Amino acid sequence: MNGLLRDAGERGLIELVSSYFECEEEDCAIVKFGGEYLLISSDMLHQKTDFPPQTTPYQMGWSLVAVNLSDIAAMGGKPLFMVNALGLPGDFKIEAFEELLSGINACASRFGVRVIGGDLDSHEEITLTGTVIGISNEGQIVRRSGARVGDLVCVTGNLGSAGGGLRLLENEKDFDRLNPLVKALLEPMPRVEEGLMLSGSGSVTSMTDISDGLSVSLADLARASRVGFKIEEERIPVYSDELLALAWSAGGDYELLFTVVPEKIDELERIVDFTVIGSAVEEGAGDKLSPLGYDHFRRG
Amino acid sequence: MNGLLRDAGERGLIELVSSYFECEEEDCAIVKFGGEYLLISSDMLHQKTDFPPQTTPYQMGWSLVAVNLSDIAAMGGKPLFMVNALGLPGDFKIEAFEELLSGINACASRFGVRVIGGDLDSHEEITLTGTVIGISNEGQIVRRSGARVGDLVCVTGNLGSAGGGLRLLENEKDFDRLNPLVKALLEPMPRVEEGLMLSGSGSVTSMTDISDGLSVSLADLARASRVGFKIEEERIPVYSDELLALAWSAGGDYELLFTVVPEKIDELERIVDFTVIGSAVEEGAGDKLSPLGYDHFRRG
Repeated sequence: MNGLLRDAGERGLIELVSSYFECEEEDCAIVKFGGEYLLISSDMLHQKTDFPPQTTPYQMGWSLVAVNLSDIAAMGGKPLFMVNALGLPGDFKIEAFEELLSGINACASRFGVRVIGGDLDSHEEITLTGTVIGISNEGQIVRRSGARVGDLVCVTGNLGSAGGGLRLLENEKDFDRLNPLVKALLEPMPRVEEGLMLSGSGSVTSMTDISDGLSVSLADLARASRVGFKIEEERIPVYSDELLALAWSAGGDYELLFTVVPEKIDELERIVDFTVIGSAVEEGAGDKLSPLGYDHFRRG
Repeated sequence: MNGLLRDAGERGLIELVSSYFECEEEDCAIVKFGGEYLLISSDMLHQKTDFPPQTTPYQMGWSLVAVNLSDIAAMGGKPLFMVNALGLPGDFKIEAFEELLSGINACASRFGVRVIGGDLDSHEEITLTGTVIGISNEGQIVRRSGARVGDLVCVTGNLGSAGGGLRLLENEKDFDRLNPLVKALLEPMPRVEEGLMLSGSGSVTSMTDISDGLSVSLADLARASRVGFKIEEERIPVYSDELLALAWSAGGDYELLFTVVPEKIDELERIVDFTVIGSAVEEGAGDKLSPLGYDHFRRG
């Protein structure tokens, strides 16, 4: 194929790689092992793209774990182990390095994940790759492809928060580190417990995490499930109305987007907090989803 | 702790991380899962440190798999699955990207490893992280710590080859891509089959791979096993004598260094090709191992 990576864009390249290695296009790799299904997520974060200058080393470590746990959560898995490959500049302070480890440790411990090893490398740009291994019973893996016409579309938490946090950091010199938008951006909370309860309920037909904006994630579910979606924009949960545009297009929220069989929705609402924002319709009959979301290869 | 990462050096930092997360300092992470022991290796390679300018995208892909398989081989494991996190510049050619995938595929297929997923990211400097998961029966995992006084020290293949290859690339404008030294550098062959046979034999007491030079690897085994080593330098296998200095200090050979109970050596020689280069002695009584090897944080 001719051209440059940025011409193909992130989604095009993921398609290319998935078809090359005959992998499913999912939030995690899935592989049968012994009597169990392993779910494996590997995500690379780096300074220029993923860490605003205000990010502390603790928050870098926390985020590295959180983004990988979010992928496991998005398939309803239980994360167990993690290995890390950490690329750091030689003039990085040892004290800051220890802070980074403590951020990794905090998020891993919070979700019962054991850090079991990894690699250290000298790298001009801070570059961190985490790989998390989780398990799931086959019957409980929730893929992107199971949404059916009539299913209700739901999300956990509030959307656009991380995008709002980024705007705050860019515009305000004195920002409040405890502001929920800033926290959402710099210390995202993966929805591990929610993902497990959703998959365990048996009522969830498809799921993914919203890491690159609602638009991109809806488009991923729509393509995999061969359906369309009608979204009622006024239902999209946000901290404040001006975050609505960011909810569609900004990355970093790490909430779960999923579809539910309508008759199970009341039952599910008793065990997990979420918001219904629309429903699945015939393929082609849904909202036009403009590709507004975050594309690693097309930014800037 | 005060200071910078480069002050602590790679080995010091590995110690810090291992003690922080209570991991063993081994070639792979080891974790019990179901009835099996999983061995997990995660290695980051990047352009400036790991890929001489003459490296083709195919060779980058090949190397990414090979260095991780070498870690699994070093513990006598059988590699099964791989996930990759690939960070590439937006102006990387799609054609070159496909070549890179074909290099990954070639090395993975050669050793029966299935590529099951991963992450794509835009990164100014080509940065590739591979994570390989393998298995081993507990009784067959070979750690760094089992060498006993009297054991014979052995290596597979020839040493200093990758270092010699690098010297060729740096000094000769028209180098031969098929030169065995250049091949050793740019398309290293992990010793997966040898590692499996060595661990299966039950005669190997400790093992590691020689990724940062013989000096560093001997020091790793000596420290973990609390022994010293007497090495007969004239026995170190090299393609030609001028490579001997590089055998001690240059990285990139990916051969196996291991110790064997003396009475089992004949039996072992019938199933694996290797060279005896010395023996294990009391801690403190061995050769002084000057820390000549490659240190990612102290180079340059």
